[in-house]
Amino acid sequence: MRQIDVIGIGAGDPGHLTLQAVAAIARADVFFLLDKGEAKDSMIRLRRDILAAHARPGHRVAEGRDPDRDRTPADYTGTIADWRTRRAAVMAGLIADLADGETGAFLVWGDPALYDSTIAILDEILSAGGVPFTYTVVPGVSSVSALAARHRTGLNRVGRPFQVTTGRRLAEGWPDGVDDVVVMLDAQQAFTAYTGQDVHIYWGAYLGTPDEIAVEGPLAEVADEILRVRAEARERHGWIMDTYLLRRGGS
Amino acid sequence: MRQIDVIGIGAGDPGHLTLQAVAAIARADVFFLLDKGEAKDSMIRLRRDILAAHARPGHRVAEGRDPDRDRTPADYTGTIADWRTRRAAVMAGLIADLADGETGAFLVWGDPALYDSTIAILDEILSAGGVPFTYTVVPGVSSVSALAARHRTGLNRVGRPFQVTTGRRLAEGWPDGVDDVVVMLDAQQAFTAYTGQDVHIYWGAYLGTPDEIAVEGPLAEVADEILRVRAEARERHGWIMDTYLLRRGGS
Repeated sequence: MRQIDVIGIGAGDPGHLTLQAVAAIARADVFFLLDKGEAKDSMIRLRRDILAAHARPGHRVAEGRDPDRDRTPADYTGTIADWRTRRAAVMAGLIADLADGETGAFLVWGDPALYDSTIAILDEILSAGGVPFTYTVVPGVSSVSALAARHRTGLNRVGRPFQVTTGRRLAEGWPDGVDDVVVMLDAQQAFTAYTGQDVHIYWGAYLGTPDEIAVEGPLAEVADEILRVRAEARERHGWIMDTYLLRRGGS
Repeated sequence: MRQIDVIGIGAGDPGHLTLQAVAAIARADVFFLLDKGEAKDSMIRLRRDILAAHARPGHRVAEGRDPDRDRTPADYTGTIADWRTRRAAVMAGLIADLADGETGAFLVWGDPALYDSTIAILDEILSAGGVPFTYTVVPGVSSVSALAARHRTGLNRVGRPFQVTTGRRLAEGWPDGVDDVVVMLDAQQAFTAYTGQDVHIYWGAYLGTPDEIAVEGPLAEVADEILRVRAEARERHGWIMDTYLLRRGGS
């Protein structure tokens, strides 16, 4: 049987790797890499360093081209579903090259449970009934955990809930029933809609990497600074990945 | 200056330790342990094993007694605030024994950002202006990440939010605006209120440990099984720590 490990490798700090992830990396025969057309040089370098440090001698690397997708689609869910199906075809092709008895690994930034498609796509491939394989998931330190640690804050307040959502959702309105909101995948700086409210923001980009930036404060006071440093960093690096926590009613 | 590290050590699997946590443990002069009156032998043993494997020779262990608290208070927030203040006094006493220039460490199960009081209490001690110190937080793999990995599922669905809440809150009603709810600290099996709805449950206890139990399925079908194995396990171990994800409208 073919074995696949989906390995959470943390938010960007090589120190985020768990001992379980290190062991899984050391065991893999093949690493499947799907890279986007856009170059994220620093992240590719970091992944290469992780393999150099922990993968066994003689491991193989199988690269697939991540299918392009519309980043501002009218039909978000439909577009993602279509992209996933095309991505499943690429991933199934990579997995088919795995010999029986070999172990392959997908390295996932952060935690595979958080806004990542690898698990869902593997299930889609298995459902389609092509190449058989089994797979396990190795949890990782998410960018959300890295954000909270960087700012030395909890995600929840005592006995209270918090929500994790996307920039797209936050732009539609503050979520019901929660005062603490973690926002991921925000390409539109949706926090700017709340500068008139009593909201504290804990913001971070490139968390865990040498390029890490963090800003924290009352949203009304620091929103402009975040917009400025975010734009500058995005220009300098060619890409940005940021995450933030909004806390309504006191820091 | 005294330095404190708040170190997330993962949900219960020694393999959840990050390389950053391993380095922080190896650097500490003193480990501060606050144990509850209730014996959680397996967790105490696991922590001892972690220190044996990673702490430097000659490290010290300073033990404090975690103050008791009412587990079913009428005024939850007030009771917790009072308990925190008493806990702060115990922790401040431990920290005061740290020599200038030494590093102390608190080992926190899971991720310090998730329903843990250590960060808030350190801030309270600093605000009170007693012994001065600086502190950093090392993120960890939470029981929520371990749960999702064990069940090989994501916490969110495509482009959608999820909420993390407590059993106490879930007992008051299904949260507004979300179909995916992660529940922690549930002493009352609040999920039983939703067996009549189209809800899928991913449940786990003692996640990451050799005692791990996991049950997954349509809530109406598996709720009784969860109640049974939970009661049996709690009886056998003398304590239980469980976490679950409720997913409304399809698995």
